[in-house]
Amino acid sequence: MNWFLTAVLTLFVLCGTTVHAQQPPGRTSLASGTWLIAMPAGADTNVFRFTLRFDRDSISGANTDGLPIQGRLRGDSVNFEVMGRRDGARVQFLGVANDGVIRGIRIETPKGAPAPSQRGDFLARQDIPSRAPKLHSFSPQSFHRLFSGTIPAALVIVPGDTVRTWTVDAGGRDSTGQSRSRPGNPLTGPFYIDGALRGDMLVVRLHRVRLNRDFALAGDEIIGNAITADYYSALKGIPDFSGRWRVDRGKGTAMLEKPTPALANYTVPVRPMLGCIGVAPPGGQAFASTESGVFGGNMDYNEIREGVTLYLPVFQRGAMLFIGDGHALQGDGELTGDALETSMDVEFSVEVVRGPNSFRQLIYHPRAENDQFLMSIGIHGDLSDALRQATTDLSVWLETDYKLKSPELASILGTSIRYDVADLVGSQVSIVAKMPKSALRQLTRPTQPGNSPTN
Amino acid sequence: MNWFLTAVLTLFVLCGTTVHAQQPPGRTSLASGTWLIAMPAGADTNVFRFTLRFDRDSISGANTDGLPIQGRLRGDSVNFEVMGRRDGARVQFLGVANDGVIRGIRIETPKGAPAPSQRGDFLARQDIPSRAPKLHSFSPQSFHRLFSGTIPAALVIVPGDTVRTWTVDAGGRDSTGQSRSRPGNPLTGPFYIDGALRGDMLVVRLHRVRLNRDFALAGDEIIGNAITADYYSALKGIPDFSGRWRVDRGKGTAMLEKPTPALANYTVPVRPMLGCIGVAPPGGQAFASTESGVFGGNMDYNEIREGVTLYLPVFQRGAMLFIGDGHALQGDGELTGDALETSMDVEFSVEVVRGPNSFRQLIYHPRAENDQFLMSIGIHGDLSDALRQATTDLSVWLETDYKLKSPELASILGTSIRYDVADLVGSQVSIVAKMPKSALRQLTRPTQPGNSPTN
Amino acid sequence: MNWFLTAVLTLFVLCGTTVHAQQPPGRTSLASGTWLIAMPAGADTNVFRFTLRFDRDSISGANTDGLPIQGRLRGDSVNFEVMGRRDGARVQFLGVANDGVIRGIRIETPKGAPAPSQRGDFLARQDIPSRAPKLHSFSPQSFHRLFSGTIPAALVIVPGDTVRTWTVDAGGRDSTGQSRSRPGNPLTGPFYIDGALRGDMLVVRLHRVRLNRDFALAGDEIIGNAITADYYSALKGIPDFSGRWRVDRGKGTAMLEKPTPALANYTVPVRPMLGCIGVAPPGGQAFASTESGVFGGNMDYNEIREGVTLYLPVFQRGAMLFIGDGHALQGDGELTGDALETSMDVEFSVEVVRGPNSFRQLIYHPRAENDQFLMSIGIHGDLSDALRQATTDLSVWLETDYKLKSPELASILGTSIRYDVADLVGSQVSIVAKMPKSALRQLTRPTQPGNSPTN
Amino acid sequence: MNWFLTAVLTLFVLCGTTVHAQQPPGRTSLASGTWLIAMPAGADTNVFRFTLRFDRDSISGANTDGLPIQGRLRGDSVNFEVMGRRDGARVQFLGVANDGVIRGIRIETPKGAPAPSQRGDFLARQDIPSRAPKLHSFSPQSFHRLFSGTIPAALVIVPGDTVRTWTVDAGGRDSTGQSRSRPGNPLTGPFYIDGALRGDMLVVRLHRVRLNRDFALAGDEIIGNAITADYYSALKGIPDFSGRWRVDRGKGTAMLEKPTPALANYTVPVRPMLGCIGVAPPGGQAFASTESGVFGGNMDYNEIREGVTLYLPVFQRGAMLFIGDGHALQGDGELTGDALETSMDVEFSVEVVRGPNSFRQLIYHPRAENDQFLMSIGIHGDLSDALRQATTDLSVWLETDYKLKSPELASILGTSIRYDVADLVGSQVSIVAKMPKSALRQLTRPTQPGNSPTN
Repeated sequence: MNWFLTAVLTLFVLCGTTVHAQQPPGRTSLASGTWLIAMPAGADTNVFRFTLRFDRDSISGANTDGLPIQGRLRGDSVNFEVMGRRDGARVQFLGVANDGVIRGIRIETPKGAPAPSQRGDFLARQDIPSRAPKLHSFSPQSFHRLFSGTIPAALVIVPGDTVRTWTVDAGGRDSTGQSRSRPGNPLTGPFYIDGALRGDMLVVRLHRVRLNRDFALAGDEIIGNAITADYYSALKGIPDFSGRWRVDRGKGTAMLEKPTPALANYTVPVRPMLGCIGVAPPGGQAFASTESGVFGGNMDYNEIREGVTLYLPVFQRGAMLFIGDGHALQGDGELTGDALETSMDVEFSVEVVRGPNSFRQLIYHPRAENDQFLMSIGIHGDLSDALRQATTDLSVWLETDYKLKSPELASILGTSIRYDVADLVGSQVSIVAKMPKSALRQLTRPTQPGNSPTN
Repeated sequence: MNWFLTAVLTLFVLCGTTVHAQQPPGRTSLASGTWLIAMPAGADTNVFRFTLRFDRDSISGANTDGLPIQGRLRGDSVNFEVMGRRDGARVQFLGVANDGVIRGIRIETPKGAPAPSQRGDFLARQDIPSRAPKLHSFSPQSFHRLFSGTIPAALVIVPGDTVRTWTVDAGGRDSTGQSRSRPGNPLTGPFYIDGALRGDMLVVRLHRVRLNRDFALAGDEIIGNAITADYYSALKGIPDFSGRWRVDRGKGTAMLEKPTPALANYTVPVRPMLGCIGVAPPGGQAFASTESGVFGGNMDYNEIREGVTLYLPVFQRGAMLFIGDGHALQGDGELTGDALETSMDVEFSVEVVRGPNSFRQLIYHPRAENDQFLMSIGIHGDLSDALRQATTDLSVWLETDYKLKSPELASILGTSIRYDVADLVGSQVSIVAKMPKSALRQLTRPTQPGNSPTN
Repeated sequence: MNWFLTAVLTLFVLCGTTVHAQQPPGRTSLASGTWLIAMPAGADTNVFRFTLRFDRDSISGANTDGLPIQGRLRGDSVNFEVMGRRDGARVQFLGVANDGVIRGIRIETPKGAPAPSQRGDFLARQDIPSRAPKLHSFSPQSFHRLFSGTIPAALVIVPGDTVRTWTVDAGGRDSTGQSRSRPGNPLTGPFYIDGALRGDMLVVRLHRVRLNRDFALAGDEIIGNAITADYYSALKGIPDFSGRWRVDRGKGTAMLEKPTPALANYTVPVRPMLGCIGVAPPGGQAFASTESGVFGGNMDYNEIREGVTLYLPVFQRGAMLFIGDGHALQGDGELTGDALETSMDVEFSVEVVRGPNSFRQLIYHPRAENDQFLMSIGIHGDLSDALRQATTDLSVWLETDYKLKSPELASILGTSIRYDVADLVGSQVSIVAKMPKSALRQLTRPTQPGNSPTN
Repeated sequence: MNWFLTAVLTLFVLCGTTVHAQQPPGRTSLASGTWLIAMPAGADTNVFRFTLRFDRDSISGANTDGLPIQGRLRGDSVNFEVMGRRDGARVQFLGVANDGVIRGIRIETPKGAPAPSQRGDFLARQDIPSRAPKLHSFSPQSFHRLFSGTIPAALVIVPGDTVRTWTVDAGGRDSTGQSRSRPGNPLTGPFYIDGALRGDMLVVRLHRVRLNRDFALAGDEIIGNAITADYYSALKGIPDFSGRWRVDRGKGTAMLEKPTPALANYTVPVRPMLGCIGVAPPGGQAFASTESGVFGGNMDYNEIREGVTLYLPVFQRGAMLFIGDGHALQGDGELTGDALETSMDVEFSVEVVRGPNSFRQLIYHPRAENDQFLMSIGIHGDLSDALRQATTDLSVWLETDYKLKSPELASILGTSIRYDVADLVGSQVSIVAKMPKSALRQLTRPTQPGNSPTN
């Protein structure tokens, strides 16, 4: 029964030995609540959330799609059934509990059929935080230039945990200027968030995004995508111009190390941000760390700063969070291709908002929130389509949270929406639709709120 | 000599009788300075600016392209010649001065030719403000739904003048709610700015943009251009929803007159703006007042408000300024097609910055400025191209004013540029590239500044 | 009664004296059929089509919106009324017939009102072809660089007429190479098509589009809009390269006059086409002859050739047709900005398909047809939007002509649609959606066909 | 020496046991020619091509960057050195030959340094076709919904080989209609092409693309990306409409199985094509089989048919070719999202054109060629950018093959370029720039041709 080995690994081993210590022995561990059910799916393992209530001998609850569960508990024997399937099929789980884990077989019998059509293993454990939240100090040893779910987790964390770590700059240099990776937005991570399943929403709170060295390296030419072809072809350089900036962390400012006369006094306040933050993309895809999409990625949005909360869709178990590409300062659109690229000290915590079920996403686009705005980030190869995505997502967000209808959304967005042009570099561009919280506070909230974390 | 009649009308009559009174009689009026030279061009009249210096008997100066002028004054006889033409042609002006006006013929003789190849009339007068600036109270009688140079001037003003007037709303209703025009952004104007020539830049300062009634009418559906096709096709209305808003001018707020329960407390601060401001388009074109372009027009930019200064290219004599389409409030992009449409009291003054010559424009795109930003407005059917125009124009603006080179521009824009999505409605969209003045103040200005009004 | 003078001019004078000769005297001319009713509209005149049937003393028929007409004829007195107005208003026409023309007053009385609310003049004549079709040989004397309805008609023609004329090249040179206009697509026309009203569709059949000289002038650089910014900025010229082509009208080929060694044998078959064909734009707008839009214009589509039929919406009385900008040959998109620009001999005939009424257009986009394809031409500043317009218009065309529903249209377009990239130059680009007639012949036509000319 | 195991596997094992049989024993196998040199690169192995000439005791040749090689052969001892490095570093290869394979160490010593800075293993074998081309009959057992270089090779082939195989339809059904995979363009492959290295160009000749069943399944709604938002939101279905088509392989036609009356006779000729063909994407990325890009992929171009030759860039060793998503017929743009989706019999052969070196690509975009056209396929999220890519790539192709300069390219493309709109579905759209071979035949070819396979 080889698959059980995999499933056990899937559900437990990544969480470390602390898991074991917290589980009381025997059937007393069958606490009511949310349970994770692992089932084989080809070479992979699918994991679903069930609600199970243990009341003496009887079992009730609901499966991932909300269908009712009924069953019985006899000693270590745990048998239950999913009721009310549309197709009339009978789905039974027959298992044995041991040490808080139920293992057994799942049997599916079509309506009116004399025998089961499918029979497979399952393994279940309660979906409780495996331990109290804690603070990790994580010093990355290797860096990745892909957003990919196949890269082994660098650190396993649980919802509520805080991670104190650092990132190299886009060229791979750390806080001492030493090269730690080939260039191209090398990423710190991936962080495996225990309990995050496909369909969930990952909440990332950026508590600290701070400069940790005294220089940054910027491009010295405007990208072709941001100006007309004629103007681009007429650009002329300055011999020996250096795009290296001096960063004064005390004053919080930056200026060119060797400025031209015109820029001799050009000192700008820094505004540290992360150009890259994202999770494993959907469907087993892997994207270069210069790419962006529904998984987040290299969004280069200058509001992804200390104090912001990010919401990212989870496409695979563990979410697999990556961060990197810090900028000391960046104008809208990252016009120079390289902003003031620098290494960064970062501290963040994570939470997970459970999705409706495993096959639909709670959210489909990256979102952000700070004390002033809700922000929907549209990402597409076509700027207009990116804007359409952003507006649509923001409207869906408000529609869900405030139970609004189309003319109400039109009235609110029509008076209060703001857009930011986040990123014009690369094959995808990003544009952000924003809603001021000052306007939202004037809305009468529904008595039965949606499940958004912003409620 | 019929053409002279036209030329006299062109140069003088529009300015009214005050002109005459200010001109001293006889040749003493031949003051050194800038002169306007009118010459027939087919059915039209071209007007150029020459610099003429009268020093006893001798005349010197420069023509519109900077070529030197030499000549002589004998009694009322005024003869001068443009020197140094590339093609070696001889260009003579032989005229007679009377009452401060020179009339005569222009003779062009190709190099080495025995006789003139062209001979035509000309008429010249000094380009002085025809009178002291004044305040006009202008109550429009008719409204126009075209930006067009062929519509007769509603009012002739001179640089420095201030105009106090009002606009109807996009549907043609005035401050009393009475219909004054068919709908479709009816415009107040055109205002003929005496002395503005093709190639110049018109400066419009908006001193007052104020609400003058207590209601506004807004769209109740998000436009298809701002959201995805799937979301757009799923929009559903609310029966009897009304997009009519109550405006509280005292408090400076607006709310729906018949709000739904969710919007019962949705009160938003107004931010009065003009959706339409523009001049006669280039090349004799005429555009509907729902269109926008290099001439300005229906840009629907929510920063075109009281306190802003607009810079518009002048494409024909008099510029022909139109204003209209006031909004009490508008989110970015004017997502509802109709923002909070309302009538408006407007007070503005104008100035003219002289272009390099009659064949090149001093600026090619609409620009704006307030106390915080320089703003270049890009307008195109393609959002990306609109953005490219905006960035390019802003870069050219800084390049010209601060004598910067490409890596310097990249360093400034890369750290400080901001974009606004102004308008997503109609066949043209507009996006604005902005530069904060706080950053500009850190630049070391060249000792020989450019000719921008922002110097 | 000044307005009658204008209305008479509007309805008759443009057609010349032949009109008069064809009208029999007295009331016997009140033939049943379609009548044109002219009514004042501010400074302008609106013209509508009514159906009037004269049966002894009684009058019946329908107005432009299909509402029934009832009335009586007494001697020269012609009185009728529009029945069944939704608002219950009474609309009466009280007139006197003379020489086939009815003149009188129109009275509108709101439901239940004691007295009329509106009273105005009207003038009517039968909408018959004012004469038999004929062939015009028209040699243009002046050329226009605007598509505009305010330019006086160069020639008045009637539906069925054929015009034999010629065009200068984009630079203004005629078949002898002589300059006849300033450059910028100078146009031949406008041709006023008598009987064409707003809402109609103008049908233009291009019987001949032939070269009339032995050279053409082409651009020698690829436009920035068709290549990447990096490639564009790396383009390098060849000193003394000439873009002048020799055209061999006998062989029907073109080659560079002074080819480089690589192009010494590069001889290509010519394929003469018209880059510009269009009518007066909607709403009194005027566009430069380098622009395109719903009115047609500078579409630069290399299938606008001899043998093609064009369908253009009519936006004002007379349609005002312009042609020009001939190309001896042009690849897709007109990549060099100037194709093989040349003067052209052109012969075309026109027809008018009556629109449903004066306030809706029969078609909204330019269309074309040759022996192989129906073609819908989408024009927009954004290439994607141009494509969306083209596909939509082609789908609407088939929907109307064949009474098809959405899944049927999807099945046909999904298997058979073809696209051409017509024009990538200028602020508007054009893309064409095409349907092969071979596929259409397989459709079962509805028994009650639509009113498209392609039925 | 664990790495040698990997390198041996890398260079040989994939090719199967036949490899071994063809290698003569001992040093006599050190034939002059191209050699593959494998060297460790972190967890991966880099492979380069060197030219080595063995002339008695002496070794000469060139490395991948063209730098000269000098060395000596003593018994089984093979020592050589790369000369002329810019940085003056000394790079030595010290190895031992056995059975045609050289294994040893590579030593790099910086200029003037007392000791080597780097020391690593290497392993080399001659880059000869490991065997004569052959025909494979390959029946796929599993299908993949990713273009990814991490999927194990389904079949290893060598340049010159032909593969006879089949593909399931986009929904995963095979020729019998049986489901073989979850839906979403499941792919046949990957085919590992032995000898293909990063930077090379893979040539795929499609000898057969034939229907192998009697039905196809098509979408019944036009996609939102191809029509206006208003038209899309107004689309209405037909109850019980079925998008299932009957394919008559004998006649080569298709018609709806249950047509509506209007489509009762709508029979269209099939034109079998492959919607998906691509290689492993660059940089270790993995894309869903619904995506497209520089690696090819789901390009949905209706000219990818029997008789066409495809050129694809190689981004990793073995190229990893995938095919799938057969369409019996598809109009331009795949307007219905699903074209006439069907399973397919496919026969193709492959060749490899060597790139300049391992770090630059010979080509950067997918290209195709049939008997009439050269075709460059531009792929981007923005239609305009896709077109710019396509035009640029076609221009670069001609520039390279024919040694043309910018005005020559402009003259050729300006007169002869054609565009196809290939695919409008999904996050990337594709547009194709085509050059007719009839025009290319008129070009005078340079005496020293480029290295394109189309020479």
